Amino acid sequence: MSEMGLVVVGAAGRMGQALIRAISAIDGARLVAAVERPDSPRIGQDAGELAGIGKNGIVIADDPLPAFAKADGVLDFTSPASTVEFAGYAAQARIAHVIGTTGCGAEDDERIAAAARHAPIVKSGNMSLGVNLLAVLVEQAAKALGPDDFDIEVLEMHHRHKVDAPSGTALLLGQAAAIGREVALADHSVRVRDGHTGARAAGTIGFATLRGGSVVGDHSVILAGSGERITLSHVAEDRSIFARGAVKAALWAHGRKPGLYSMRDVLGL
Amino acid sequence: MSEMGLVVVGAAGRMGQALIRAISAIDGARLVAAVERPDSPRIGQDAGELAGIGKNGIVIADDPLPAFAKADGVLDFTSPASTVEFAGYAAQARIAHVIGTTGCGAEDDERIAAAARHAPIVKSGNMSLGVNLLAVLVEQAAKALGPDDFDIEVLEMHHRHKVDAPSGTALLLGQAAAIGREVALADHSVRVRDGHTGARAAGTIGFATLRGGSVVGDHSVILAGSGERITLSHVAEDRSIFARGAVKAALWAHGRKPGLYSMRDVLGL
Amino acid sequence: MSEMGLVVVGAAGRMGQALIRAISAIDGARLVAAVERPDSPRIGQDAGELAGIGKNGIVIADDPLPAFAKADGVLDFTSPASTVEFAGYAAQARIAHVIGTTGCGAEDDERIAAAARHAPIVKSGNMSLGVNLLAVLVEQAAKALGPDDFDIEVLEMHHRHKVDAPSGTALLLGQAAAIGREVALADHSVRVRDGHTGARAAGTIGFATLRGGSVVGDHSVILAGSGERITLSHVAEDRSIFARGAVKAALWAHGRKPGLYSMRDVLGL
Amino acid sequence: MSEMGLVVVGAAGRMGQALIRAISAIDGARLVAAVERPDSPRIGQDAGELAGIGKNGIVIADDPLPAFAKADGVLDFTSPASTVEFAGYAAQARIAHVIGTTGCGAEDDERIAAAARHAPIVKSGNMSLGVNLLAVLVEQAAKALGPDDFDIEVLEMHHRHKVDAPSGTALLLGQAAAIGREVALADHSVRVRDGHTGARAAGTIGFATLRGGSVVGDHSVILAGSGERITLSHVAEDRSIFARGAVKAALWAHGRKPGLYSMRDVLGL
Repeated sequence: MSEMGLVVVGAAGRMGQALIRAISAIDGARLVAAVERPDSPRIGQDAGELAGIGKNGIVIADDPLPAFAKADGVLDFTSPASTVEFAGYAAQARIAHVIGTTGCGAEDDERIAAAARHAPIVKSGNMSLGVNLLAVLVEQAAKALGPDDFDIEVLEMHHRHKVDAPSGTALLLGQAAAIGREVALADHSVRVRDGHTGARAAGTIGFATLRGGSVVGDHSVILAGSGERITLSHVAEDRSIFARGAVKAALWAHGRKPGLYSMRDVLGL
Repeated sequence: MSEMGLVVVGAAGRMGQALIRAISAIDGARLVAAVERPDSPRIGQDAGELAGIGKNGIVIADDPLPAFAKADGVLDFTSPASTVEFAGYAAQARIAHVIGTTGCGAEDDERIAAAARHAPIVKSGNMSLGVNLLAVLVEQAAKALGPDDFDIEVLEMHHRHKVDAPSGTALLLGQAAAIGREVALADHSVRVRDGHTGARAAGTIGFATLRGGSVVGDHSVILAGSGERITLSHVAEDRSIFARGAVKAALWAHGRKPGLYSMRDVLGL
Repeated sequence: MSEMGLVVVGAAGRMGQALIRAISAIDGARLVAAVERPDSPRIGQDAGELAGIGKNGIVIADDPLPAFAKADGVLDFTSPASTVEFAGYAAQARIAHVIGTTGCGAEDDERIAAAARHAPIVKSGNMSLGVNLLAVLVEQAAKALGPDDFDIEVLEMHHRHKVDAPSGTALLLGQAAAIGREVALADHSVRVRDGHTGARAAGTIGFATLRGGSVVGDHSVILAGSGERITLSHVAEDRSIFARGAVKAALWAHGRKPGLYSMRDVLGL
Repeated sequence: MSEMGLVVVGAAGRMGQALIRAISAIDGARLVAAVERPDSPRIGQDAGELAGIGKNGIVIADDPLPAFAKADGVLDFTSPASTVEFAGYAAQARIAHVIGTTGCGAEDDERIAAAARHAPIVKSGNMSLGVNLLAVLVEQAAKALGPDDFDIEVLEMHHRHKVDAPSGTALLLGQAAAIGREVALADHSVRVRDGHTGARAAGTIGFATLRGGSVVGDHSVILAGSGERITLSHVAEDRSIFARGAVKAALWAHGRKPGLYSMRDVLGL
């Protein structure tokens, strides 16, 4: 099969540049266009040079329509308003649309779902293959190893500049555990422990947070029983994994029938 | 539901004693009989006292038939010849038979399968819930994260007295990875690395072994990609987990229709 | 050199029994007497049988004086009042006294120091060789890797029944880090993180707590800098390590000149 | 104190660029000159721009003498022949010389030692603060926890492209353990384990190697005893740590009396 031609929207942003680098690093994908807002100072620049991989002859343009016309798929980590617009164009062009945009409201989601009747869309708040796989495994483990026997703890570590705790990914993994246990996370979380805590309540999901250095993001889910422990962990070495996951999602969606897919579908789980 | 009455065969052996302790520690299970070979010097002794949990009034007997007659299930970590015989009795009594016996030949397995037409049998070479769950998760992860992107490594650590490497459980986990990848483990294993190894070949499954101290058994399967890593680990704190898993298997099999089941079935996966 | 003859005081208690087992497992040490309070129901019983290692011919006695007279050292995890009394006897007999007793007040400590002018005493709140070594290493690492570059975090995990957090050992390790940094731990601790925490303040020492299963005690101290991380960890597999450390301390103190020693001295650091 | 002015030699190479970035990121250090070989095509280019941190007005020059004349220290990851020459110039200028160059022969080392009579020199084969600290801690731990009780294992993981095993750093850590134990590493190494290995021989130092993904470099030294384990680990997140360590070494050496120092001296251990 020939390479999949991809257009990156928001091509001059930090994520756009990461997507351009990821495309160049992954077999089977090829950059065919790079789009930015008409008011971007980067219009007319070489997309490869901007992304730090050397000139590639793709000039950053402001009109998505000719870009979509020659592409097999779109990679999109922009804003809800732009994403809804791009979903419409991708649907018309019948090409795959990979959406890593966060913050979409209910109305945005409806319009994206409508577009998914005409083209395959993969949408996820976290495009890392590893984190999405981990969430699936955590859900199964939490289901198989019940609350009478196994206690669930979620541990994360991030760099010293992170301002909130626990991380969104830690909560996502806690949520996966709660789904596996068929409970509401909000009712079963233990977010901190200090001083006289009493014994651990069965069925709770504990969180613990470490901060320091330049750690990109480590997450572990521990299922601790009598005499044995399972630990399921993810280490992010750099932020390129989100771009790589998006390219992988596009390759998976290429030629697939219309529909709204998640990273779980991409993982085949 | 009333408690499940269990008979332990090979009750005076190390594993038999562990089973008796596990039964007393797990809700829903109750020891109703303890059986040993007629030539055992322990015949007539109190099974609880021998197992170190205090007298429980169950005297170690040499005749399995009255024992099976009053039980709902049998826990059996004996020998292939004994296990085949017990499978026949359990089939007649229509009670669950949990088999942790290792070393069964093809003929033994046939006779066990025949018995499973009349009663539920759970048979596994490793009765730990955690290890069995880990194997299922490893298979899925190996399938979802393909060999072009993710390298699989299996690491284990055991105490200083262990005389072989890698451990049987490490090989079991490597086998699970190979199944997920749809390859033969034997053709894809890298068992050691030393000196000039050259770059890692894609699609191989590497093993590494640590030995020291009194470690009961730690196993990790690592899936390492570009920029991210998944690690799936199991820590055994003590050998009681095999007895606990067997009791859990019996409780799961209680009242189930005849058939030959594995620990994966017990885990609901 | 001939074996060191040891007397265990408080021989019928949980720790006393562990000490008796440890003595029998370690080369160079030999149990010569076992002492309990006069009102103990165990007086007259065989100490080995009580400790679960089979009869050893040492009968539990209520008079420490003849016991100390034939011993080269005393292992003592009793109470402050008893320990002060035993310190006097050991000083008279000029034999080593290993004290794992906790809760001694200033006056107790003075009397123990006075006894140490006549015989070698090793006293520590945690007799594990590994934990004491870790504390030394943490202090050095915290000193060598300063607060502008490296953030210190202390992580611990214990079983589900533990009722306080962080563990005493976690605080001991945090204290070692604070000493290395020449700051007061109380002013620099971050005990919990939840919600909007803001960026990590340089120079703080963070704590995080996990609870679950039957974990005896895992502790890690992480020093996280830009681009690299050091982690110093201790795993306790079972509680026998405190008894083993006490026996090791006695062997180290045997024949040494009078003085009050710590486990750091035993470690030669 | 005013900032330390540094000259980078080999400024256009991969390591030279990393040094220029590290200087700009660390308080107290300032780039005052950048030197390359006369035949380098980079002569005359802006050193900051080449290193990817934007123009800094320091032009890459081919004459070291005026560069050394205005500097307080030299950072040097070049070749043995160049390093010996630079050591002479630094000695004349009485400025600190940090040498990360590898492959120096006995004669080179003699000439470097001679130069160290006139100026402070810090020389190390691995400039990471963390790895050097870890080696010191490993030596102490290996000494404190003797071979009768504790088994030492060295584990490392690197990316899939690494062609040799174990890593140089793993061997350096094994060497530190051997020094602590006062044995020769060559006589006590166990480099691989496979098949029937027999029980672990006391006093040996085992190695295990993992390969996969893009792991920059993880190293752990495990000391495993009866009932407890110490693990001392280092994680390298990116290769900038070697440049950072070199800048730290220069700041430490600034104004110090002449002598040949190691990273242990820089760490104050």
